Amino acid sequence: MFYGGDYNPEQWPEEIWKQDVALMAEAGVNLVTVGVFSWAKLEPQPGHYEFGWMDAVLDLLFDNGVFIDLATATASPPPWLAKLHPESLPVTEDGVTLWPGGRQQYCPSSPAYRNAAQLLVERIADRYGAHPGLVMWHVNNEFGCHVPACYCDTSAGAFKGWLESRYGSIDVLNEAWGTAFWSQAYGDWDEINPPRRAPTFTNPSQELDFKRFSSDALLECYSMERAIVKGATPQIPVTTNFMGFFKPVDYWKWAQHEDVVSDDSYQDPSAPESPMLSAMRWDLMRSLGSGEPWILMEQASNHVNWRRRNIGKRPGQMRAWSYQAVARGANGIMFFQWRASRGGAEKYHSAMVPHVQPESSRVWQEVKQLGNELKQLDEVLETRGQASVAVVFEWDNWWALEAPSKPAWDLRMMDQVFSYYEPLFAANVPVDFVTPTSDLSSYDVVLVPNLYLTRAGVAENFDNFVHAGGALVVSFFSGIVDERDNVYLGGYPAPLRRLLGITFEEFSAMPPDKRYRIALSDSGSCSSDQWSDPIRLEGAEAIATYEEDWLAGRPAVTMNRWGGGRSFYVGTRLDREGMSWLLEEVVGVPRPNWGFEVPSGVEIIRRSGGERVFTFLINHSDREIEVDIGPGRRNPLTESDHPPRLNLEPFEVAVLAT
Amino acid sequence: MFYGGDYNPEQWPEEIWKQDVALMAEAGVNLVTVGVFSWAKLEPQPGHYEFGWMDAVLDLLFDNGVFIDLATATASPPPWLAKLHPESLPVTEDGVTLWPGGRQQYCPSSPAYRNAAQLLVERIADRYGAHPGLVMWHVNNEFGCHVPACYCDTSAGAFKGWLESRYGSIDVLNEAWGTAFWSQAYGDWDEINPPRRAPTFTNPSQELDFKRFSSDALLECYSMERAIVKGATPQIPVTTNFMGFFKPVDYWKWAQHEDVVSDDSYQDPSAPESPMLSAMRWDLMRSLGSGEPWILMEQASNHVNWRRRNIGKRPGQMRAWSYQAVARGANGIMFFQWRASRGGAEKYHSAMVPHVQPESSRVWQEVKQLGNELKQLDEVLETRGQASVAVVFEWDNWWALEAPSKPAWDLRMMDQVFSYYEPLFAANVPVDFVTPTSDLSSYDVVLVPNLYLTRAGVAENFDNFVHAGGALVVSFFSGIVDERDNVYLGGYPAPLRRLLGITFEEFSAMPPDKRYRIALSDSGSCSSDQWSDPIRLEGAEAIATYEEDWLAGRPAVTMNRWGGGRSFYVGTRLDREGMSWLLEEVVGVPRPNWGFEVPSGVEIIRRSGGERVFTFLINHSDREIEVDIGPGRRNPLTESDHPPRLNLEPFEVAVLAT
Amino acid sequence: MFYGGDYNPEQWPEEIWKQDVALMAEAGVNLVTVGVFSWAKLEPQPGHYEFGWMDAVLDLLFDNGVFIDLATATASPPPWLAKLHPESLPVTEDGVTLWPGGRQQYCPSSPAYRNAAQLLVERIADRYGAHPGLVMWHVNNEFGCHVPACYCDTSAGAFKGWLESRYGSIDVLNEAWGTAFWSQAYGDWDEINPPRRAPTFTNPSQELDFKRFSSDALLECYSMERAIVKGATPQIPVTTNFMGFFKPVDYWKWAQHEDVVSDDSYQDPSAPESPMLSAMRWDLMRSLGSGEPWILMEQASNHVNWRRRNIGKRPGQMRAWSYQAVARGANGIMFFQWRASRGGAEKYHSAMVPHVQPESSRVWQEVKQLGNELKQLDEVLETRGQASVAVVFEWDNWWALEAPSKPAWDLRMMDQVFSYYEPLFAANVPVDFVTPTSDLSSYDVVLVPNLYLTRAGVAENFDNFVHAGGALVVSFFSGIVDERDNVYLGGYPAPLRRLLGITFEEFSAMPPDKRYRIALSDSGSCSSDQWSDPIRLEGAEAIATYEEDWLAGRPAVTMNRWGGGRSFYVGTRLDREGMSWLLEEVVGVPRPNWGFEVPSGVEIIRRSGGERVFTFLINHSDREIEVDIGPGRRNPLTESDHPPRLNLEPFEVAVLAT
Repeated sequence: MFYGGDYNPEQWPEEIWKQDVALMAEAGVNLVTVGVFSWAKLEPQPGHYEFGWMDAVLDLLFDNGVFIDLATATASPPPWLAKLHPESLPVTEDGVTLWPGGRQQYCPSSPAYRNAAQLLVERIADRYGAHPGLVMWHVNNEFGCHVPACYCDTSAGAFKGWLESRYGSIDVLNEAWGTAFWSQAYGDWDEINPPRRAPTFTNPSQELDFKRFSSDALLECYSMERAIVKGATPQIPVTTNFMGFFKPVDYWKWAQHEDVVSDDSYQDPSAPESPMLSAMRWDLMRSLGSGEPWILMEQASNHVNWRRRNIGKRPGQMRAWSYQAVARGANGIMFFQWRASRGGAEKYHSAMVPHVQPESSRVWQEVKQLGNELKQLDEVLETRGQASVAVVFEWDNWWALEAPSKPAWDLRMMDQVFSYYEPLFAANVPVDFVTPTSDLSSYDVVLVPNLYLTRAGVAENFDNFVHAGGALVVSFFSGIVDERDNVYLGGYPAPLRRLLGITFEEFSAMPPDKRYRIALSDSGSCSSDQWSDPIRLEGAEAIATYEEDWLAGRPAVTMNRWGGGRSFYVGTRLDREGMSWLLEEVVGVPRPNWGFEVPSGVEIIRRSGGERVFTFLINHSDREIEVDIGPGRRNPLTESDHPPRLNLEPFEVAVLAT
Repeated sequence: MFYGGDYNPEQWPEEIWKQDVALMAEAGVNLVTVGVFSWAKLEPQPGHYEFGWMDAVLDLLFDNGVFIDLATATASPPPWLAKLHPESLPVTEDGVTLWPGGRQQYCPSSPAYRNAAQLLVERIADRYGAHPGLVMWHVNNEFGCHVPACYCDTSAGAFKGWLESRYGSIDVLNEAWGTAFWSQAYGDWDEINPPRRAPTFTNPSQELDFKRFSSDALLECYSMERAIVKGATPQIPVTTNFMGFFKPVDYWKWAQHEDVVSDDSYQDPSAPESPMLSAMRWDLMRSLGSGEPWILMEQASNHVNWRRRNIGKRPGQMRAWSYQAVARGANGIMFFQWRASRGGAEKYHSAMVPHVQPESSRVWQEVKQLGNELKQLDEVLETRGQASVAVVFEWDNWWALEAPSKPAWDLRMMDQVFSYYEPLFAANVPVDFVTPTSDLSSYDVVLVPNLYLTRAGVAENFDNFVHAGGALVVSFFSGIVDERDNVYLGGYPAPLRRLLGITFEEFSAMPPDKRYRIALSDSGSCSSDQWSDPIRLEGAEAIATYEEDWLAGRPAVTMNRWGGGRSFYVGTRLDREGMSWLLEEVVGVPRPNWGFEVPSGVEIIRRSGGERVFTFLINHSDREIEVDIGPGRRNPLTESDHPPRLNLEPFEVAVLAT
Repeated sequence: MFYGGDYNPEQWPEEIWKQDVALMAEAGVNLVTVGVFSWAKLEPQPGHYEFGWMDAVLDLLFDNGVFIDLATATASPPPWLAKLHPESLPVTEDGVTLWPGGRQQYCPSSPAYRNAAQLLVERIADRYGAHPGLVMWHVNNEFGCHVPACYCDTSAGAFKGWLESRYGSIDVLNEAWGTAFWSQAYGDWDEINPPRRAPTFTNPSQELDFKRFSSDALLECYSMERAIVKGATPQIPVTTNFMGFFKPVDYWKWAQHEDVVSDDSYQDPSAPESPMLSAMRWDLMRSLGSGEPWILMEQASNHVNWRRRNIGKRPGQMRAWSYQAVARGANGIMFFQWRASRGGAEKYHSAMVPHVQPESSRVWQEVKQLGNELKQLDEVLETRGQASVAVVFEWDNWWALEAPSKPAWDLRMMDQVFSYYEPLFAANVPVDFVTPTSDLSSYDVVLVPNLYLTRAGVAENFDNFVHAGGALVVSFFSGIVDERDNVYLGGYPAPLRRLLGITFEEFSAMPPDKRYRIALSDSGSCSSDQWSDPIRLEGAEAIATYEEDWLAGRPAVTMNRWGGGRSFYVGTRLDREGMSWLLEEVVGVPRPNWGFEVPSGVEIIRRSGGERVFTFLINHSDREIEVDIGPGRRNPLTESDHPPRLNLEPFEVAVLAT
């Protein structure tokens, strides 16, 4: 199990480095990420490289038993790049230039940036590829975090090239973008720009393609660097750190180019929904890597510094959340950063080693304890999670769905995903994320929150899944447009109409303060808001109906028997009770058999492999909870048995091994 | 009666065109607006025109009995214009350029835009002036909608020219703008710019003149095009579509150059005040055309797409609102647009023909029903509305009143107009809008909401009206400045002081959460907020007095007998009850005699002419309402009599003809 | 006692000037500020000066007994400067240029502006230095009010020069700014810019230095002008008008260059906290001048025009607030402006002479009464205030504390100062403001709200103060960083740790809606929010403890006996009751002995000198209050004795003289 964090020794004098490695040993640190922000130190003037200090750092680490995740140092160019190449600075849609002083001030399409980055990475790969401490490459850092897209002239040129290669001819682009409307037809590629500030709504297909292009422009940066380090060290795994459900970057596409997936996770310690949000993003990380273990590349030991109020983690909370990551597939627990900065923008971001003497620090004690515990869990490394429920999630759809000019602009992708995920999380049902064209054959249930953009092939994939006996649940405003964001004609939701056995002819957004009462087929009821499709049945049966207004008596939720399976359509936004009823009582999502009763407030997750089964129990509540696990459950941290009746304090964790 | 909508065939292949004309026949469509966004299709490259497809469209329409409102196609230039003439793009006050990708991306003063527009319109006028289907010209589209003003250097030059022609000498401008304050005196025209972003408040007279200029710059665009089409076809009426109470454009000035007034109206179907707002804007449209019929040029069949939640029209609601337009003077009911777009920014804007098969669509059925009904109402075309109450409304005043740096910045023109209009609408009192210098002799009552800017001649006009027996009601913060936005000295409200018989020496805005109790002369009471002039009587009598604070016992509302009439001054913002009391009980606005009792919730309006009287009843409420109209009322839609007791369902309409 | 206001005769024809001086005589006006916005009138074209009108104005004033505070007229350049030198216009951090049309549209570092200003001031000093009416120079106006900082290239160059002179070498700057983080290391001065818009948080040390630079850039403008007028007239005092607690400008540094401090004060008349806020800012003004009298240079006679609702002063309120200024050390009461403008941005800002005939104006009557009263108070001029309590306040700390990226971003300097000042104001305890390195030996109690940035020497100064017997109260988040905004290592709050006898190892911001119950040492309780340091005692004792959550039982407020005195640490934000308990019951701030009981609602302040003692009582409440002052108290306004039982009406003032 990897344990460690970002190590930025350039912030400190060399005498501190020696204290660092001693403290790392004390805390069980075996991996550190070095060099993320070292460009200015490695290349203080253009073309003038200084590697001596880095040589010393890497040797010192390796000599003290710490392995190296070596960053390519390209995440933030030195100020000289902006001075030499002002055109490399990114520009917003309003034409505002973003200057040095923060970080990441480069246009992803800038040749000046790319060339300088390439030269640097080549040197780094050349110099350190053979370093015995090197176990991983860390390309750049949090791609797209602060500059998800650039609207400058260089980006405009790159966007045109991208479009030309996507569409081939300007006529095809005009058709795809629907430029016949509003007199937007382009006569030539040169007339096209990024969707800069316009008098009113910009063309939504142009916006969608620009989001695709922007993700791809960053991916080109990544791929260029990856190729260099892979060329030098084909055997060393390469990663770049993801940021959970990060809208600007299509992680499905990126993950194909990663040897190992890694995540930076900073949930708010004071938000009750944080454990659910963590679970969800880590299920995504596991899914991005096709079930393979991933690395929690960054988390905070205590508080961050970029919220308006930066609440600290309470005693035990960091440990509980770290185990949650392991339970959901992480094989490494890392922090940003090793030692808290004295100066700069993140000096109030907590670290493994605080500003004060570590021995008197609660946080350091917890860091040390965790590092030493994790050493006991190497058996976990080869195990994996299992899920029979999948949630369909796709960036293209996210981008298209949230463009303005929709029936309800406040229809947000993540809200809808939450509405499915939350009852499953509460019921401890393991979930995978999949794309709409993933192989679904291993799942019993597939959930489809608002798949507005339904690409070619998706309907067939769903059809096959249901035919083969699966249960498919599709939310409203799915199956509306193709990948060009052009509406499917012929009766909504055209490509899914037969499979779902329903249709409707108009959208019906609801006023913001309006709620509808919904009668459920089992004589219960719930409420709904935001949206209400006036469904007509075409083979399906109503399993929930509106009780109010002009839709009274019309179907709100439907079920269609199709081949060996069932497809469900949810034509409105059900409340929490409605979603639980649907998923648990009607669809019947399968729950794992834990062998004992799991009280509410306790999260339980399993990793298994070969004969090994590890079961993780985490008390996320603020009260003590008793769990009657029965006798004979081994505690791998103590190598003794757990008591048959566990008393889990707040944030307490129990690992059960068989 | 015209019936139809915007027709944009360039979005569809030719086989769809044939379906279109068949459906138009089915729905009773007799007029469509063609070419609003066709520039890029008509002139795909600079100077290269392609009219063949338009020839085919117009012939097809005419051959199928549909007349043509032909747009000049200049509302949105093709992308090539921006490529060729980047200086033609509009610029915001912050210096942000507005790019292609939406629509209307032109600086109204741009010679490049104007030249290109002129060449295009000349070709169109030349080619289609003699087309037998042509019955109306539609110049541009919604002038000023997204770019009400441009701050670029070209606009700066045009603004200087406009100022030079207005003021003649720089000294006169300096005096008018009060540039002696804050050291703003201009030595030369060349030093003047649009009121671009400044360190603090810009000069309010400069702002006011820039609003006048910006309206005029657009009017020049309109007039240039109008001159071309009028030159080609003097007999064909010309319009451009207005947008209700649209602040950036002075519709009184524009309406003088329109052969027929038209309006685009998109009230929120879920807002209870929408019928009142529609009534108000349509009374304005009728008034802009001096009482002549106007055309509802655009409305939605169902929902729009540009609100955060786009609520659909409930069954019957589109019909009810369409009849409301007819009742208030419309001789045409048109939609945006004929067929819903598949792509682009407005694909979720409802249309006459939806994305789905029309026959199964509720909305299409309603569209078809309405079109066929309206054929029965040709007798209505020659009738007109009548009003004995007028509301004074002027753009200059709106602009000046809402500039910041006032005693109460949240004093909004439209709120104040509503406060007068709402009780009159509830009482079914017909209202005209007039300018402050209109001939008022046909009215019994003239209402003057907050005429802050009181031009020369206005006081005399009001004086004459009251002298001759009229009742004039003037709200606080009227008569304060001249047309330069310079304060009248000599005791507020100087030009109206004698007529009103009151004065005061200071303004007294009230804290936001403060309300005053007001004692009414008939021993009732109401409340007021926002403002409270400390009135001194100079001949008038108090008819309502403050009961609180340092103003306790001082007049809040006054009445002055003047010649044969009465003038009222309202020194505070009365609540709804106070306004009803004032208008109905004190002023005594005259109500029409309908011949029967009209229950609350039903709007009733009359159009008459010759021996024809059409009375329209509309149930805007969500409940059934009985109206006892008595026997013998003809229903022109059925050519039979109405029952003496009408049961009006929600959104039901009854037309009574005599 | 000076009495008068800003006089802007260029707004009016000469016949008005004669009325002005007659009215000034009537109102007891003896000083006016002339020329603040006269640049365009004095130099209508570049290099072409016109002084004739100013000659006439000054002579007319002096001939009528009115002295002159002559402005240097540089506060707002004429439009020709922007035309001739567009590069002199200021630019925001987003790159938006600020244009003429308002006022103050100059980059403070612009050579073009500075040269033009210098030439003008030289002429003015030369022409009017010997004018017999001249008694004061008024340099520029409200420096920094609308353009506190400029981000243009000229400013960038000046900033680099400022940094070079501060740091000497680029390595020292890199160390100070912590540029090793985020790869920000500068290789050359030329790479540095103002902290323009960046992709994310800019470097906080760069931000802090830019705030220092921006204050200094304005100070250079001031000093340049001061040198010119001082050179011409060494004996004439020089001022520039301050704006209370104005964040962009370091008034401690500026006050060293002022012969007399002056303040522009515009508290909201409808805000209950306004008297407290006025008291606080005027205590600052007195402290900036080391206790010497200052001048209230601007206030409004009635309402201002720049709030969203501009509430007027009620009858008596202007007088009450004017006396409050005198009581807190003002030797002059001035208004903006003499005569209300007819045009321009401030025409709804009240003035001494209103738009209407003055004789009928309530406000004019109050202005006249006050002017004639103040003539009776010349004895007050030589008296001074006394305080035994000091509040530490410093701009560097304000700037650093409120930069983002802190544990709680909503920790605002002024809120924290209020929390100390408010209970003292309510208890009528006189307060001085001091810098952290001021001589504290004359005070009994020193209060230190959130001295986040604790410069070298400060800890020693506090240490000496406490050792010598003083009581020192320090709020949380003090002693955290040095003047480079670099964290002090070695256990928070490192430089104050021994003095306070406590430490802690982490910050603990609280969720926004969270409050803690706090048990006080005397068995009372209070609540706290925002912040809660987990204090460890190192010699201090707990005098208040948390009762909740993981901090339950841990110290919230501590007291440490140190030398002859006591130091207190407040680790959370106490509520109003907690602060009163701390300051009054525990620390025991000394209250003056007034000789009689002072009821709540009445502010009481004393000025004394020689044998003179003036005691001012002001009723800020909206009810009549009785004060039993006893017999024999002289009223200097009437030269008779006050009755022993005073009945103070709302806004009534009593001056007691001995």
